[in-house]
Amino acid sequence: MLRTGCLLRALRFFSSAPCPRHKPSGRLSVRDALRAQHTSGERVKVQGWIRSVRSQKEVLFLHINDGSSLESLQIVADASFDCRELAFGSSVEVQGQLVKSPAKRQNVELKAENITVIGNCDAKAFPIKYKERHPLEYLRQYPHLRCRTNVLGSILRVRSEATAAIHSFFKDRGFVHIHTPVITSNDCEGAGELFQVEASSKIKAPEGNFFDVPTFLTVSGQLHLEVMSGAFAQVFTFGPTFRAENSQSRRHLAEFYMVEAEISFIENLQDLTQIMEDLFKSTAMMVLSNCPEDVELCHKFLAPGKKIRTYAKKQLLNWGADLQTEHEKYLVEHCGNIPVFIINYPLALKPFYMRDNEDGPQHTVAAVDLLVPGVGELFGGSLREERYHFLEQQLARSGLTEAYQWYLELRRFGSVPHGGFGMGFERYLQCILGVDNIKDVIPFPRFTHSCLL
Amino acid sequence: MLRTGCLLRALRFFSSAPCPRHKPSGRLSVRDALRAQHTSGERVKVQGWIRSVRSQKEVLFLHINDGSSLESLQIVADASFDCRELAFGSSVEVQGQLVKSPAKRQNVELKAENITVIGNCDAKAFPIKYKERHPLEYLRQYPHLRCRTNVLGSILRVRSEATAAIHSFFKDRGFVHIHTPVITSNDCEGAGELFQVEASSKIKAPEGNFFDVPTFLTVSGQLHLEVMSGAFAQVFTFGPTFRAENSQSRRHLAEFYMVEAEISFIENLQDLTQIMEDLFKSTAMMVLSNCPEDVELCHKFLAPGKKIRTYAKKQLLNWGADLQTEHEKYLVEHCGNIPVFIINYPLALKPFYMRDNEDGPQHTVAAVDLLVPGVGELFGGSLREERYHFLEQQLARSGLTEAYQWYLELRRFGSVPHGGFGMGFERYLQCILGVDNIKDVIPFPRFTHSCLL
Repeated sequence: MLRTGCLLRALRFFSSAPCPRHKPSGRLSVRDALRAQHTSGERVKVQGWIRSVRSQKEVLFLHINDGSSLESLQIVADASFDCRELAFGSSVEVQGQLVKSPAKRQNVELKAENITVIGNCDAKAFPIKYKERHPLEYLRQYPHLRCRTNVLGSILRVRSEATAAIHSFFKDRGFVHIHTPVITSNDCEGAGELFQVEASSKIKAPEGNFFDVPTFLTVSGQLHLEVMSGAFAQVFTFGPTFRAENSQSRRHLAEFYMVEAEISFIENLQDLTQIMEDLFKSTAMMVLSNCPEDVELCHKFLAPGKKIRTYAKKQLLNWGADLQTEHEKYLVEHCGNIPVFIINYPLALKPFYMRDNEDGPQHTVAAVDLLVPGVGELFGGSLREERYHFLEQQLARSGLTEAYQWYLELRRFGSVPHGGFGMGFERYLQCILGVDNIKDVIPFPRFTHSCLL
Repeated sequence: MLRTGCLLRALRFFSSAPCPRHKPSGRLSVRDALRAQHTSGERVKVQGWIRSVRSQKEVLFLHINDGSSLESLQIVADASFDCRELAFGSSVEVQGQLVKSPAKRQNVELKAENITVIGNCDAKAFPIKYKERHPLEYLRQYPHLRCRTNVLGSILRVRSEATAAIHSFFKDRGFVHIHTPVITSNDCEGAGELFQVEASSKIKAPEGNFFDVPTFLTVSGQLHLEVMSGAFAQVFTFGPTFRAENSQSRRHLAEFYMVEAEISFIENLQDLTQIMEDLFKSTAMMVLSNCPEDVELCHKFLAPGKKIRTYAKKQLLNWGADLQTEHEKYLVEHCGNIPVFIINYPLALKPFYMRDNEDGPQHTVAAVDLLVPGVGELFGGSLREERYHFLEQQLARSGLTEAYQWYLELRRFGSVPHGGFGMGFERYLQCILGVDNIKDVIPFPRFTHSCLL
């Protein structure tokens, strides 16, 4: 292990020469080639997979893509380069001069001096066919190959950009990132059906369970984040969560990602909904400015008829009943198909940790959901009950006093008002991309091959 | 769902007013208060937990912390504010004027005009005692409270900074982030002992397994990343991985984080080790420049005697045997306690996917490990076998032909030379912080409370 001073000096010493950006000289990604400003004929090397081939009498046009952008790089080569192996799906390395393109569709093109085929593509066996636009249902059958299409390329780049945008959003605002546990013995009070985890049968645990107690895959990092919010005023997590719901629906996944945040010293729902709204808008703006073509492609081909009138929002109060999917849909339509915050749910219907509004016969808790057209519940959050005696009563009412002693205990040591929320990441992606089936915004839909899921 | 144009216009409309940074006017985090440049007496509000109390005849000194930095903010108040409740661990809100501090230890201090105790701290029951420096072993017994100490605060802030630095490193270099599956039926060929996942007993699966096939928690995202590397030249993942190793050691965890990357069109180990080295150095520099006090605290109190002579590195060739922990330790010591790359391992000892070096009787594969003093293996990587017939032979040799047809198939459609690596994130943190027990760099060590793990 390295002592700070030593580590720092050593790193500085080695960094006196600027870190090489791991690229043999002249090697460019397709994205960098397309963005090149000075195309005065410098020699470069670009590698990628062939997306189109057009052979003319004297000239051969190729488009190659390496996943760095939706747009491919046009290669212009002498017809003598043409060969059977330069086909859709093959991988190639092209050396040549980057020049300004005479065509309007692109800014630059690569005048090939040398083309090497790296790997052939067996066109007959390849389930992705040249010039065909395969429906997403068809592609879902080939989870190991579908990333080679434009549309999945775009969805996955957007997913990557959105992930980065969410991390930036919280970092810029001073939140501390916490990796909450995936394996837990806590079920976050009925948030959903659980997956159980046990050492595989090959291993013998000394006595019963591997971890002494039955353990599950997390359904929410909220309670762990709340632990941290007793020392860090702003914390967030962004990780996988699990529900063993036996559903083949286009709205549910067994494994999905959640963005969760807890904020200490927060005293009303308005402050909480403001952060939710900022998170949605700020990250959507970042995604749109970093990969507009990818977002555009999805909207053009996946959700051409869908639009909303405006991104205004309404706020409704709920103190009557729990809401089913149909109710949510009705409410959103009733408000004119705009995002709608529902606040203040009946205490009797909600988990013990939500803050009692003490509002007489209605008796609600300070909970909030954000419903979005076409997607349903995107965010859920609440103020948490920070008052020892209120929480004690709620735990007793729910028969959880013993199991949640540790949680109650947190209120004995400098308890503060706090609140938090969770946002389903896949639903967020569906929302900004117009993707109908949630299985199309995850990198791997359930694998048909028995060895990969 | 929102059409791009609409979404963009709506977002722009709402963003015409700059996003409010969710802070009631004048509310500052401790970090922002400490960094204030113009301390000409502006009125601010700061909230946090009391870390120290010093009562003098006419003046009361408090230090409050909200987790935004290691350093606390000094509050100077009239002695009349003094009360029993202003004690170590209590949460408070202080309003007053931010002024230049006459003391040398801090730049600014807060002249209190009003102090409100938000939540008391039951000092008797609180396992963290004022002015005591509790050993990490002691704190591990209180996983729900230990984040309230300076040392865990520092470790968790560094963990958060390192997470952000790793995401930035890859984003800056154009890598696409992929969420590889946590639940999988793939075992990445013996990378470790598995946890099995099944719907909890309450749910009846229609027939046997919830997912038709037995499923496990991932031990590595490598093979899934390799799928993606057939369309994206540079991909990475940074998520939880699992090993059901029945170990109480200070070096192993059942649940830990791995940074994994795959790079297409890479042809030799040197290019791969360069990226590994850049990743380590560049992110360590970011952590050191963003939270130097936190790193310093860890080194001062946790690893005062440990240092290395220099951060040079050596490279050894291995073509004789697999390496046990003791061998690794010996090699690192033999090289003078510096990080050491070991390259080229015997083919017979390594998994089927590593690239055959075709080097005669030695017969090695292009694998690489980075060993680090005190921590052991920090990185492991290899070139992957991209040649169809070599891979086919290796699969046959390992008896895996049927199970890995899908993987072999990837080589039929534009296969490219590629390589990748994994870095254990907790070991990385141990390495830069000098933390001896790996359980102290995760947010939650195994919970003693039966309801949380």
